[in-house]
Amino acid sequence: MGRLNDWDNFAELDFEREERCGFPEVIYGAGKTPDQVAGIMKALVEKHDRVLCTRANSEQAKAARRVVNDVNFVESCGVLYVDQRPEGLRIKGTIAEEILDDASGLGSGYIIVCCAGTSDLPVAQEAALTACIMGSNVGLLTDVGIAGVHRVLSHEKELRKARAIVAVAGMEGALPSLVAGLVDVPVVAVPTSVGYGASFGGIAALLGMLNSCASGVSVVNIDNGFGAGVIAHRINVPPERFNA
Amino acid sequence: MGRLNDWDNFAELDFEREERCGFPEVIYGAGKTPDQVAGIMKALVEKHDRVLCTRANSEQAKAARRVVNDVNFVESCGVLYVDQRPEGLRIKGTIAEEILDDASGLGSGYIIVCCAGTSDLPVAQEAALTACIMGSNVGLLTDVGIAGVHRVLSHEKELRKARAIVAVAGMEGALPSLVAGLVDVPVVAVPTSVGYGASFGGIAALLGMLNSCASGVSVVNIDNGFGAGVIAHRINVPPERFNA
Amino acid sequence: MGRLNDWDNFAELDFEREERCGFPEVIYGAGKTPDQVAGIMKALVEKHDRVLCTRANSEQAKAARRVVNDVNFVESCGVLYVDQRPEGLRIKGTIAEEILDDASGLGSGYIIVCCAGTSDLPVAQEAALTACIMGSNVGLLTDVGIAGVHRVLSHEKELRKARAIVAVAGMEGALPSLVAGLVDVPVVAVPTSVGYGASFGGIAALLGMLNSCASGVSVVNIDNGFGAGVIAHRINVPPERFNA
Amino acid sequence: MGRLNDWDNFAELDFEREERCGFPEVIYGAGKTPDQVAGIMKALVEKHDRVLCTRANSEQAKAARRVVNDVNFVESCGVLYVDQRPEGLRIKGTIAEEILDDASGLGSGYIIVCCAGTSDLPVAQEAALTACIMGSNVGLLTDVGIAGVHRVLSHEKELRKARAIVAVAGMEGALPSLVAGLVDVPVVAVPTSVGYGASFGGIAALLGMLNSCASGVSVVNIDNGFGAGVIAHRINVPPERFNA
Amino acid sequence: MGRLNDWDNFAELDFEREERCGFPEVIYGAGKTPDQVAGIMKALVEKHDRVLCTRANSEQAKAARRVVNDVNFVESCGVLYVDQRPEGLRIKGTIAEEILDDASGLGSGYIIVCCAGTSDLPVAQEAALTACIMGSNVGLLTDVGIAGVHRVLSHEKELRKARAIVAVAGMEGALPSLVAGLVDVPVVAVPTSVGYGASFGGIAALLGMLNSCASGVSVVNIDNGFGAGVIAHRINVPPERFNA
Amino acid sequence: MGRLNDWDNFAELDFEREERCGFPEVIYGAGKTPDQVAGIMKALVEKHDRVLCTRANSEQAKAARRVVNDVNFVESCGVLYVDQRPEGLRIKGTIAEEILDDASGLGSGYIIVCCAGTSDLPVAQEAALTACIMGSNVGLLTDVGIAGVHRVLSHEKELRKARAIVAVAGMEGALPSLVAGLVDVPVVAVPTSVGYGASFGGIAALLGMLNSCASGVSVVNIDNGFGAGVIAHRINVPPERFNA
Amino acid sequence: MGRLNDWDNFAELDFEREERCGFPEVIYGAGKTPDQVAGIMKALVEKHDRVLCTRANSEQAKAARRVVNDVNFVESCGVLYVDQRPEGLRIKGTIAEEILDDASGLGSGYIIVCCAGTSDLPVAQEAALTACIMGSNVGLLTDVGIAGVHRVLSHEKELRKARAIVAVAGMEGALPSLVAGLVDVPVVAVPTSVGYGASFGGIAALLGMLNSCASGVSVVNIDNGFGAGVIAHRINVPPERFNA
Amino acid sequence: MGRLNDWDNFAELDFEREERCGFPEVIYGAGKTPDQVAGIMKALVEKHDRVLCTRANSEQAKAARRVVNDVNFVESCGVLYVDQRPEGLRIKGTIAEEILDDASGLGSGYIIVCCAGTSDLPVAQEAALTACIMGSNVGLLTDVGIAGVHRVLSHEKELRKARAIVAVAGMEGALPSLVAGLVDVPVVAVPTSVGYGASFGGIAALLGMLNSCASGVSVVNIDNGFGAGVIAHRINVPPERFNA
Repeated sequence: MGRLNDWDNFAELDFEREERCGFPEVIYGAGKTPDQVAGIMKALVEKHDRVLCTRANSEQAKAARRVVNDVNFVESCGVLYVDQRPEGLRIKGTIAEEILDDASGLGSGYIIVCCAGTSDLPVAQEAALTACIMGSNVGLLTDVGIAGVHRVLSHEKELRKARAIVAVAGMEGALPSLVAGLVDVPVVAVPTSVGYGASFGGIAALLGMLNSCASGVSVVNIDNGFGAGVIAHRINVPPERFNA
Repeated sequence: MGRLNDWDNFAELDFEREERCGFPEVIYGAGKTPDQVAGIMKALVEKHDRVLCTRANSEQAKAARRVVNDVNFVESCGVLYVDQRPEGLRIKGTIAEEILDDASGLGSGYIIVCCAGTSDLPVAQEAALTACIMGSNVGLLTDVGIAGVHRVLSHEKELRKARAIVAVAGMEGALPSLVAGLVDVPVVAVPTSVGYGASFGGIAALLGMLNSCASGVSVVNIDNGFGAGVIAHRINVPPERFNA
Repeated sequence: MGRLNDWDNFAELDFEREERCGFPEVIYGAGKTPDQVAGIMKALVEKHDRVLCTRANSEQAKAARRVVNDVNFVESCGVLYVDQRPEGLRIKGTIAEEILDDASGLGSGYIIVCCAGTSDLPVAQEAALTACIMGSNVGLLTDVGIAGVHRVLSHEKELRKARAIVAVAGMEGALPSLVAGLVDVPVVAVPTSVGYGASFGGIAALLGMLNSCASGVSVVNIDNGFGAGVIAHRINVPPERFNA
Repeated sequence: MGRLNDWDNFAELDFEREERCGFPEVIYGAGKTPDQVAGIMKALVEKHDRVLCTRANSEQAKAARRVVNDVNFVESCGVLYVDQRPEGLRIKGTIAEEILDDASGLGSGYIIVCCAGTSDLPVAQEAALTACIMGSNVGLLTDVGIAGVHRVLSHEKELRKARAIVAVAGMEGALPSLVAGLVDVPVVAVPTSVGYGASFGGIAALLGMLNSCASGVSVVNIDNGFGAGVIAHRINVPPERFNA
Repeated sequence: MGRLNDWDNFAELDFEREERCGFPEVIYGAGKTPDQVAGIMKALVEKHDRVLCTRANSEQAKAARRVVNDVNFVESCGVLYVDQRPEGLRIKGTIAEEILDDASGLGSGYIIVCCAGTSDLPVAQEAALTACIMGSNVGLLTDVGIAGVHRVLSHEKELRKARAIVAVAGMEGALPSLVAGLVDVPVVAVPTSVGYGASFGGIAALLGMLNSCASGVSVVNIDNGFGAGVIAHRINVPPERFNA
Repeated sequence: MGRLNDWDNFAELDFEREERCGFPEVIYGAGKTPDQVAGIMKALVEKHDRVLCTRANSEQAKAARRVVNDVNFVESCGVLYVDQRPEGLRIKGTIAEEILDDASGLGSGYIIVCCAGTSDLPVAQEAALTACIMGSNVGLLTDVGIAGVHRVLSHEKELRKARAIVAVAGMEGALPSLVAGLVDVPVVAVPTSVGYGASFGGIAALLGMLNSCASGVSVVNIDNGFGAGVIAHRINVPPERFNA
Repeated sequence: MGRLNDWDNFAELDFEREERCGFPEVIYGAGKTPDQVAGIMKALVEKHDRVLCTRANSEQAKAARRVVNDVNFVESCGVLYVDQRPEGLRIKGTIAEEILDDASGLGSGYIIVCCAGTSDLPVAQEAALTACIMGSNVGLLTDVGIAGVHRVLSHEKELRKARAIVAVAGMEGALPSLVAGLVDVPVVAVPTSVGYGASFGGIAALLGMLNSCASGVSVVNIDNGFGAGVIAHRINVPPERFNA
Repeated sequence: MGRLNDWDNFAELDFEREERCGFPEVIYGAGKTPDQVAGIMKALVEKHDRVLCTRANSEQAKAARRVVNDVNFVESCGVLYVDQRPEGLRIKGTIAEEILDDASGLGSGYIIVCCAGTSDLPVAQEAALTACIMGSNVGLLTDVGIAGVHRVLSHEKELRKARAIVAVAGMEGALPSLVAGLVDVPVVAVPTSVGYGASFGGIAALLGMLNSCASGVSVVNIDNGFGAGVIAHRINVPPERFNA
């Protein structure tokens, strides 16, 4: 129960989240003060080897760096994270691009995050980083919009070897339909708010994706790269109990 | 000015329409009685060599046949027409399919009407027949939805030779973007009401088309095959004053 | 290219679909004549051991039975299918309910399809049958709406052992959020058109699901049980190349 | 009747409001100048023992403090108030949290205001403070969102003893349905504008609440904590004529 | 868990609902067969003294009468009920209209259900009957739309003595605002789908009510008379634990 | 106050309406039984020289004729009326068409109702008849849609002599803007539900009219010819107190 | 035809507007530079005795004062005007408030502009000033919202003597319905963008007004006080040709 | 495939675009840094004689001028371009206004871009400049809104000689319908976001244009002058293969 005189001290961290859901609680940076973000990261990093904060800004990153070691901040997509896993598992500053040449050696497959235009890139990056830090290998495919269909087709081989695909697009949002017609694994579609006029902040893309004529497409909220990354990872890497 | 006692006798035919707009007044069948349609066709056929009625039903067709000769009715798309042009110009029961093998002999080019799924076919047919009766050569390309992108790509050569393209699609409405990325002529996009749930009777397709990431796409109203046919024809066959 | 004189004979079956996407082409019954459905089923059953037709009605079922053997029709959800797999793999008239007591012997896990109210049942059944015929074991959990939260909680153990969950709900559409808070696998949310007034034919449920505060929820179109079944199956049973 | 030359001097205070509606006129701070707020508070405090101003900012608070004694300002929710009731009745800086341990001694019951996430807290606080200053005992329950259903269930006992409940939530807005399934008193639901993308500034939550599958839920405008507080208080404390 | 072979036998009655929520489970008649309604009523009437079914039709009423005694059916609002309480408590065929002359003798007050136009009457009746069968005294005030404001004002005295008010209106939905300005108790607003054009099936009324400029108004779904009746009763008659 | 046992007998006629508003209560036929319409007409005709019922059907007309003399029914627009004014004032079966040739002799001016297409005619007729029976001279101008602008311009002289104009249009609803640019009197715009696809049942026309770039246009609900007729008449013929 | 090198010099004043429409062209200040507004005012004032500019700001007012004499600026509603009519006709700094006590001496009646809340006042002022400068006598009635219905009823006598009424309201927008039920002259309704949440920037009020249950209400665009003022004036003061 | 460490270096220019689509890739300036715009222009100008950047600002223009010669910036519509064609073909600072006096000497016709109000001018300019730089002769017609219909009619002769027309309008968006009724060539309609209140950022105009009652109108996205310019040019100047 909250009290009037300590209303600002409300965040109750859920340290059991990892056990229940396979990953520690993720911080949603938007609307939090730099000190709040830093404080929560500090508390989480004491119990977990990874901490993830989405929709972060550089002020929050600065504050976090003052109290936590090894903080990474990818400004282009607002992702702030700590990754203290052993080297080899850890994110290497490269989103697994080598996977795409030869996927044969990978036990649990990989994810491809693809996006239509460069304006969609921040959302795609959020999805890719989220899946990476959760433990998936991820390849990122940019600038494969439907208006130049040969671009996506030139990657058909890599797409068909992925265990899950995240397709990110604004405007008419047709990329997921195009990709889902090429593969036999789930496609997680992310509409973005990219566009103007009758794109209505992503509604056009959202509706397009919900009405995909291709089977195997499901959709998350507008600009929700994080959510798509979580789902793709859960498809790609089953909980341990399925591996026995 | 209308009078109370003759309110049902209101249709004032515009016999000068052909001169002003290049084609006689077109009848919109929806909501008219069989007798009204038949009467208007009879009046028009006395002054023109072609008469077109869209959104017609079989009752109207029967009534028209009782008072006018050589009435054709294409039930699948509700188009009722008379075509008394000299043979060779006249619609032959085949929408110019041979054009597609070899377009070299055509002075003014041709139009391709393509559609995503079989449910979109009536709208595509309305567009094709409209452009045909106005004087264009038209090819019809069906079942080229985006979920099987190889199908539309297998027709790339014919598409690139057309002077104008009508792209008809429901659901996510992505076909016009795909096609416009392949050609350098205008694409007239027709959203259809095909779909369910969040297609909202064609809104999803309409928004997708308005937000096309490809240049060269303009859009008409949902299910408005007739309108698209008129525009494609006007692109394909300029008014005579441009031919001097 | 279509021709005017054979416009009704348009269905071009895609017999390679199974190879590309892991399952033969699925028939969408809505808007097709009984003869069309029967004809397509007959053509497909000659090449495949399973045929699925969704949104079918009893007239179509009757027509199909006249030309195809072993046709099953589940009227409550409009699913018409043929399943000629060897016994043991085949759908048994019971959707794998015994799995739920003891999931330990299952190599590839199982899917749970749960729904909020009895009005949502047809959509849930469509999802369950789709995943079954594609090869998944599926349990169906009904009447677990959020207004009586103890009901869904009493099944927490079975839910936590599933490899994927389909959560079907109309009205406020909160079931997927509730379920996703209990598990660490993907939840595919299906909004239904159940409700009245401000449910706007499923929009309320759709928006609720897109805005789920729980991670791991993705959404398909309103009433699209089929689509959810496909996705859940693709999560549950990876393509064979991942099993080496 | 207004005059052109004194158009700025328009506020006509309704000093009889308390008699008709049980509480003095409440000031809506948004869009008023600091001086206007201060002037109105000064006028009201001369006739009433309590004055409430919602949607206030710190400039208005400063101005009010210059002309009125004992002004309280709760910045986190923008509530500015004066409470000159005898001690014991007065708001104590703690929203009645002790009530929740043992409600047996309370003649007229208490209200619980609960909210899903920390971003919803300002709206919950506005509701709680409004009901408090009107004379209700209020407990505030935070961070009980549906994605972690065990949290709200751990408070089931206190919830079931309340006379009215205010449930505040953004995003999918499912908390009121969950709570209403646990109790037999009215639940006043407040959608908030918390969320992004397809939350459409609170529409998703609003629709979810209007379509609640649980009986006993009614809804106020988006972010209208004040309105919910008034209603909950009117449920909790009947007008005096009912106490005879 | 449901089974494929008994999918139609799904209704699991919740006989503990009365204990938890103060009234037995209510049947929602829409979409149920006459036999289903009759069967559920028969099962409920064996355990409870009252059974309520909303959105019922005359076929369902006939079926119910064949297997249950003392079934009442109010066709104008589709309410089907059994009331086996002792006489005096039971609904008398008159909705407590005498209460309105003198409310002094009533321990727990009464509810007034008022509606704007005669088209709104069925929804108002559903609200009134729901509250009646749950145990409230209810007065019904019809034809008090805002366009003839003197009509509602002529009932100001009775309105001001009620413990809760249900205000039902379609079109612009302004009645709740008008009434809430006259009283100091909660007003439950019910928008109806009455209207045409820009009423959008009740959206105009719904929005009007959500934006009421009067305090104390909360809103239920369009045409949801039942929901409003439940809430008004819960306001009017507190659970027994509050009466000690 | 209504009683349960006579809920069907609710219509309370407002015989003072004429005094307060200048015309007797008007019957809205939609949803009323033939007997109800007939009964109300009979009651009204005993006190007034004119009775108007809008949205009536031929069954209601038949029932009315059985109990009331001199009933007129204009089926094309669903208007049922009795007009027992002295000849000369009475509606003559012709809506004042001669006025348009020479308006000089008219003391109080006249109204022109114009409409874009023939599908809009029923709404225009409802407006015209409403204004006529209330006492205005009315001219009806049909088929003056914006796509053939010369048609409306050919009536510019008559339009400029009217005291008020009702402009009725569906689809893009541009007629009122066009007309308002030609005159210096109020234009009452009536959007109609004529159109398909993105006309959204009249929303496109409604929005077009609300956004008119011409001054002097106000708008009524979709298809509300009656409302426009009332307003135009009130502009054209001031209440008697202004004539002194 | 415009030229690229003088694209900024585009304003072509329409000096014949007064003759055609009864008042000189009105300047819409929004989006114009101070110099543009000043320049246009200077040009107009040379030909007309009155100039009106709406949606003006103080920068524009300052610029206008530098080049034009006798410029008035009413900052609260953004109206900038010059009025060089003879005294007696000219706006006196008082909007005709004395009219309201005794309307008997007025030849052409007066207009009442009323508004619900103080936030609606700027829009009401724009309407009032517009009608004043065009030549009407106008009374302004503020703070007569529906939640305190006695306030508007206390002005019933003045309202019933007006020739036209402008009713301005945000939120649920019910004031026009209330007023129209009291009078027999046209009511011009102006929805305002006042409100929050589900008011959707004035949509709630707009829909409420379009669905008014009272006859005689027509509606203008959200916040369009100017438009309402023009219409009310045209109702109140007929063009001269009607006065002969 | 992108890499995490060079995510900002993503723009892959498509130098073959001219061959495929008849014009080099066009830069969309919005959201790009000045350096990005300058860099892309520099790369393109090395391979093409023309470069076009839309939605540019003056910072971008400055940066471009530092690295590229002969950069033109039309600030009023945000168009930045380089035109190194031979003189005679090049844009001359005048959009072909002389064409309008005598179109007889033009081989391929010209385009007219017309707009309703001065606020629509930037969008019209974007369309005009786009078509110019692509190689069309273009005339610009401003201030021809529907409220003063005589203005557009006075240009009927020039309009009827154009090969394609772009009609730009906000508010009710009726200009394209008006123009399309006068000509026999395609009209490309551009809705603008000009307006307020119920214009909803251009939705009103968009819907109006989609529902045009005139044949031959197709529509592009709100404010998409560039898109309309491309389409009009492709209509006006066919690809070279059609000129043999």
